[in-house]
Parts: sequence; structure tokens; C-alpha cells
Amino acid sequence: MHIDILTLFPEMIESVLNTSILKKAQEKNKFSYNLVNFRDYTESKHNKVDDYPYGGGAGMVLSPQPVFDAVEAITKETSSKPRVILMCPQGERYTQKKAEEFATSEQLILICGHYEGYDERIREHLITDEISIGDYVLTGGELGAMVIVDSVVRLLPDVLGNKESAPQDSFSTGLLEHPHYTRPADFRGMKVPDILMSGDHAKIEAWRRKESLKRTYERRRDLFDDYPLTEEDKKILDMISNQDR
Amino acid sequence: MHIDILTLFPEMIESVLNTSILKKAQEKNKFSYNLVNFRDYTESKHNKVDDYPYGGGAGMVLSPQPVFDAVEAITKETSSKPRVILMCPQGERYTQKKAEEFATSEQLILICGHYEGYDERIREHLITDEISIGDYVLTGGELGAMVIVDSVVRLLPDVLGNKESAPQDSFSTGLLEHPHYTRPADFRGMKVPDILMSGDHAKIEAWRRKESLKRTYERRRDLFDDYPLTEEDKKILDMISNQDR
Repeated sequence: MHIDILTLFPEMIESVLNTSILKKAQEKNKFSYNLVNFRDYTESKHNKVDDYPYGGGAGMVLSPQPVFDAVEAITKETSSKPRVILMCPQGERYTQKKAEEFATSEQLILICGHYEGYDERIREHLITDEISIGDYVLTGGELGAMVIVDSVVRLLPDVLGNKESAPQDSFSTGLLEHPHYTRPADFRGMKVPDILMSGDHAKIEAWRRKESLKRTYERRRDLFDDYPLTEEDKKILDMISNQDR
Repeated sequence: MHIDILTLFPEMIESVLNTSILKKAQEKNKFSYNLVNFRDYTESKHNKVDDYPYGGGAGMVLSPQPVFDAVEAITKETSSKPRVILMCPQGERYTQKKAEEFATSEQLILICGHYEGYDERIREHLITDEISIGDYVLTGGELGAMVIVDSVVRLLPDVLGNKESAPQDSFSTGLLEHPHYTRPADFRGMKVPDILMSGDHAKIEAWRRKESLKRTYERRRDLFDDYPLTEEDKKILDMISNQDR
């Protein structure tokens, strides 16, 4: 997969893309990226990429010309039809499902604004997706772009070392994870539950299932809406909700 | 405000915290940070910070000792009672409201795991908050920590240059923003709506209000749940929903 990131702050992004899993993914040739400072494409005499909003008001608005030209310079070099993704607070909320969808593309182009709004013509005529990583305000789209790169690249085949670590994550199974414990068994008087040291694998699995259902019940009941509960799960949830009363 | 970030990958974070608004906030003495590699606190002979999970299974689990000791080394130096925030997928979903709450603290401590799960005793006995930035899986907590720093620091007094830019953002007003346009009025045949160039400020405000309501109606109806609509807003929404049929 190849990802182009349009940003006015490429230096913000570089070190994240060259650490840990993202670095290894590049070494294995699973992923490459290109940081494009779209200021390089402006036709403005003063090297500007934004301007005052029509109709007045505070804040600046990103001009269409540099963004259109930067995207078109990328797409004319490629035969695939990349997704062109605008990072913005009004966008569709990003989810693991969307990450899985993006992970099937050969190429993504991510567009990051910074303080400014986007000229509406970018939204209407240039992009394929608008994405928001959550209901909070950031100074720019760069962190959102890094979130997309990280969440998508780790899903690519052979990127994660331990093949089992991906499917057990929260949101991949659809429920929150059960608690984890490691050594020491007694840390300053705080102890690991006996059952985890019993060696009885069936009991351990049942305990973990119950704790995963319990945590999801306590914190994120909305996740059950999309989750196919078994009859056994339903019995466990009845017990949990009875204890809750 | 001072923020300590516990991470095994400090080099991922440095350049984000030293760019743009976050850099300026430090220059104005509104914000300082410290990156703590909690591997420096391990008592393990082999410099390990994680270990196999009790009860078996894939993946590793962060040991309690280095994380407890790193947090305690910070808190014994400070008289304020910092929030100790664990970045994790099972946490409370991060929102602008939470950012505003964190922005009132003098000190935050952010704990980032990486691939591993956390030993449950960290969750039960060390922290004050568990935060998830969204329903997607990342390779570590570092991007989440950067999201918190960015969203919180920009809310601190006198950090944003243009004082008007903060309250007009999406999620701060509670509705999605209206479309923005800047020059040129005609970009490759794509035109700016006439009303924005009319100079009639009352009409422009009314148009923007309508577009903001319309965009929220089309994309994020859930935001109306917490939003105090005026009688005029309700009339406009009735018109929009009638057109929609």
C-alpha cells in the first residue's frame, strides 16, 4: 500500500511513520508513503495557501488551487484510483470497520488542514471520503492522518509479527477485552485471581469470556447492538445484570 | 499546565509536541512536557517491561512494577494531584467535553502501552481515568496521548492566536460548521454561492445558520440531542426535513 499525505507540517509526521510497526512495515515493503507539502503547489505570489472567507468571519480558509493541483499531480502518476480522504471534524466517524475497508485499497491520499477551514469546492469536487477520528477539536488534520495510517497499515497481511495479536484486540472481536495479568502474582499485596493460575484452561476461558461480557456491559453496552451473542452469552449477561440490581 | 507522557517510544512524540501551536504554547510558558521512558524504571535484569499473561494466550502484558514506579517518581515531586490517564481501547470515549475538563488541571500524566495489554492492577490501583480516542485499534497509546495534548493545550488561555477561532469550531458550538469559501469566486467553473458576495450580513448569517443545521441534520443528527434549538432553528429544520422527503 502507498499513502500520500498532504500537509503544511510534514516534519510533524515523519518520526511517527518511522517508528515501531510502521517502520517494520516499510522494511518489509508492505507500505510506503510520501509527504507532500501542498504549499509547493500554490500559484500565489506570496506563497499563500489560505485566504479570507467570503461573507466575512474569523479564521482563514484553505484555497482550492494548491490542494486540487497537489492531488492531481499524484493521481496523474498512478493507474489505480486512490481514495482521497479529507481529515475534518464534519466527516464520518472513523471506526475499525472503516480501517478494514481502507486496508483493501492500493493507495490512499490523506489531506490535512491546519486551523483553517476547507474551501467547500475541495469537499464537493475532489475527495471521496471525509473522516473525523472523534468528537474533539484538534489544531490540524495531521494526528488524524497518522491514526489512519497506523490503524490501516497494521491490518495489512504479514505486518504484525505475532499473527494472533490482531484478531484478539478490542473492536476486532466486537467486545471489550477481558483483564490481563502478568508476574508477579503478588505485587505489593495486589494479587492475581487464583483461577488464572489454576492451569484449568476451560475454566480460564469461561472466566475470560465472562469478564469480557461484563466489561462490555459496564462500559459500552452499545457494542452489543452489532454483536451476535450466543445463548450461553445471554445467560451470562442475565446473571451480570441481576447482580447489578 | 505540565504533561508527563510515559512511553516506550519517546522519539515518536517529540516532533509533534514541538510543531505549530504546541511549540508556541511552550514558548509562551503555557505548557511544558516531559517524556518518560518507563523502561528506565524496570527492576528486571533483562530490562524487560512486559511478560507472558497468566492463564496463557497470545500477546504480552505490561508489568505493573515499571509503570507504578515511573508514576510514583513523578507524583512524589509534585504537590498538585495530577490526573493519571491510561490510553486504552476499553476506556471512556474522548470528547471535547473531556478535553475541557482536562484543560482545568495543572498536571496530567498520560500512560501509553504499545501492542501489549496492561496488567489489571495498573487499571485498578494507579490511574484516575481510562481514555479511548475512538473505536479503532492502534499499535500503541502514543497517538492517543498526542491527541489529548493537542486538544487540551489549544484550550488553555492565550494559546490560540486568534481568540475567535476556538468558539466557532465544530463541537464547541455543538453543531457542525457551515461551508466555507475563499477566492477565487470562480475556480475552474466551480462557483461561490452568490449570497456570500452580497454584502448583506443578516442574510449571510441566516444562510450560514441554515447550512450548519442542514449539515448536522444530514450527518450527525445525534448532536441535536444535547443542543438547545431555538424556535427559529426548529422551523428551519422542519423545512429541511420536508425537502428531504
